[in-house]
Amino acid sequence: MTQKITITDSTLRDGMHTVSHQFSPADMAEIARALDQAGMDLIEIGHGDGLAGSSYQYGFSSASDTDYLKAVCDVVKQAKVTVLLLPGIGTKKDLQAAAEIGAKAVRVATHVTEADISEQHIKIAKELGLFTVGFLMMAHMEEPEKIVEQARKMESYGADVVYVTDSAGALLPDGVRARVSALRNAVNIPIGFHAHNNLGVAVGNTLAALAEGATFVDGSLRGMGAGAGNAQTEVMVAALNKQGYLTNCDLSKLIRAAEDIVAPKMSRPQIIDSVALILGYAGVYSSFFLHAKRAAERFGVDALTILEELGKRRIVGGQEDQIIDVAYELSQKQALVR
Amino acid sequence: MTQKITITDSTLRDGMHTVSHQFSPADMAEIARALDQAGMDLIEIGHGDGLAGSSYQYGFSSASDTDYLKAVCDVVKQAKVTVLLLPGIGTKKDLQAAAEIGAKAVRVATHVTEADISEQHIKIAKELGLFTVGFLMMAHMEEPEKIVEQARKMESYGADVVYVTDSAGALLPDGVRARVSALRNAVNIPIGFHAHNNLGVAVGNTLAALAEGATFVDGSLRGMGAGAGNAQTEVMVAALNKQGYLTNCDLSKLIRAAEDIVAPKMSRPQIIDSVALILGYAGVYSSFFLHAKRAAERFGVDALTILEELGKRRIVGGQEDQIIDVAYELSQKQALVR
Repeated sequence: MTQKITITDSTLRDGMHTVSHQFSPADMAEIARALDQAGMDLIEIGHGDGLAGSSYQYGFSSASDTDYLKAVCDVVKQAKVTVLLLPGIGTKKDLQAAAEIGAKAVRVATHVTEADISEQHIKIAKELGLFTVGFLMMAHMEEPEKIVEQARKMESYGADVVYVTDSAGALLPDGVRARVSALRNAVNIPIGFHAHNNLGVAVGNTLAALAEGATFVDGSLRGMGAGAGNAQTEVMVAALNKQGYLTNCDLSKLIRAAEDIVAPKMSRPQIIDSVALILGYAGVYSSFFLHAKRAAERFGVDALTILEELGKRRIVGGQEDQIIDVAYELSQKQALVR
Repeated sequence: MTQKITITDSTLRDGMHTVSHQFSPADMAEIARALDQAGMDLIEIGHGDGLAGSSYQYGFSSASDTDYLKAVCDVVKQAKVTVLLLPGIGTKKDLQAAAEIGAKAVRVATHVTEADISEQHIKIAKELGLFTVGFLMMAHMEEPEKIVEQARKMESYGADVVYVTDSAGALLPDGVRARVSALRNAVNIPIGFHAHNNLGVAVGNTLAALAEGATFVDGSLRGMGAGAGNAQTEVMVAALNKQGYLTNCDLSKLIRAAEDIVAPKMSRPQIIDSVALILGYAGVYSSFFLHAKRAAERFGVDALTILEELGKRRIVGGQEDQIIDVAYELSQKQALVR
């Protein structure tokens, strides 16, 4: 219980989704300074979709990666300024530029079955002297054995830590425990856990991950993040303190940063609305929601039922055509029952 | 895992705190109808502090107990319309009146160490033919053995169910497990759990309670409730479905009720702000917050540290004078360190 836990705050990266990537470099600097002064270990910054995420496809951020990094590196004294890299969106060149400006850590993120594509970037990150995290996203979609196989790959490429990333907020504590404990017995590097709150268990899942031996966890102030948001940093740290874990964070300072600096900059509160809940429940990509809603209207079936079925079939991005198939099949079944 | 779980929705009672007790009887009827049609088992209604809660001390609700009950009983077809009774606030007479109008269940609530004072009201409730719940509030303040002793009293008075009530949202899953499992082995009536979300674990704690054998749990739509609110009913039911528990609730209908009916009536979103977090962390009454803040300013110490110390000393309502003592002592210690 006196294990030291390393915390990454993602208010300035995952939280960018909540403000449509519109934090200014000055906003970032102000929040990063407060996090740094509160003892945060890693401060992740940038567009919500990572380096080079600013685009027509993912939405434009209000400034460039370079401008954000310069603003934050200027004020952060002790924390590791961290960037996210999704191979296919960000490139080697983007990572090199980030390191030059002053990034000290990178999270290389792939779909949970695609650790292969992280090899090049993890190796480059290590060459650049960066603290390098392997980030296995949509971890609810695969069983522990599969995640072990993928995590071992990231470890073999040189990752310093490997994360179980519950991108859809679709895991419950039992599922988190199964995944983290499997990894704990299979790799020699520390295990991390990144929660989303779609099922209301971001903090509960984080505690479950820690109980199984994870030592890296993520949060964001006021819970800012994609979907229903992340574990709320200040709340998570309060829970960790209460549970007897050690962290480098000063809870009072985090609470003040959340209330006095972050809250006034939020354009909407981070709550669990129907869309976020349904996506976490079905465990599908958020982009499926509108498709499912349209198909539901067209075929006179329930959107939630379509999304549940898509989750069961483990449909991923690029297979959107199957949404129509599922809606049609459900409408046929409905007709039979009537 | 195929255990049937009985759910009480408290949007219209605990949730009244979020709207300063200002739901109108028409609001209540509209929400209660939606909950009833979604299969809710018990629908708790009325002033946030229960029968006769409307007062200078606790704030006036926009209508009387009678008007709320009439409006709700008129539209509810299958759920048990439920009232809360805090002996000392509500009386025997209030309970009789509620039963006459059509209440089918009552929760008789006392501080976790004061089950004694529920005897008369539990017995009257049973005589009136009401489904009767014993509600042990501020359950984080006592160890499992003490709670067992108090629950046995409520069982002996005739309660149909006994609840572990985490009024301050101060418990973590381990604390919930310890309390529920102790009760499970000590009483013969079903065990309930009522969560608050101050530490972000309302749903996580509810799952922990169920895993230990609780079969009654509470929620409110959009999480409406005192402090950081309750377990969010629609989110909790999604988590229960996903975990394999059976309920009478239709998730789609709950989601629609939350989004289309409740959300537009909320004057503020239910989030975990600094006050709610600090109170859950310290495990003290919400009314202590302003006192602590004032004392902090007066003695130049940290309000969070004062509240933590009050929590450690297990100060309860009526002992507010100790807040000054604690602040003074802390300031003396601080002076020594400097």
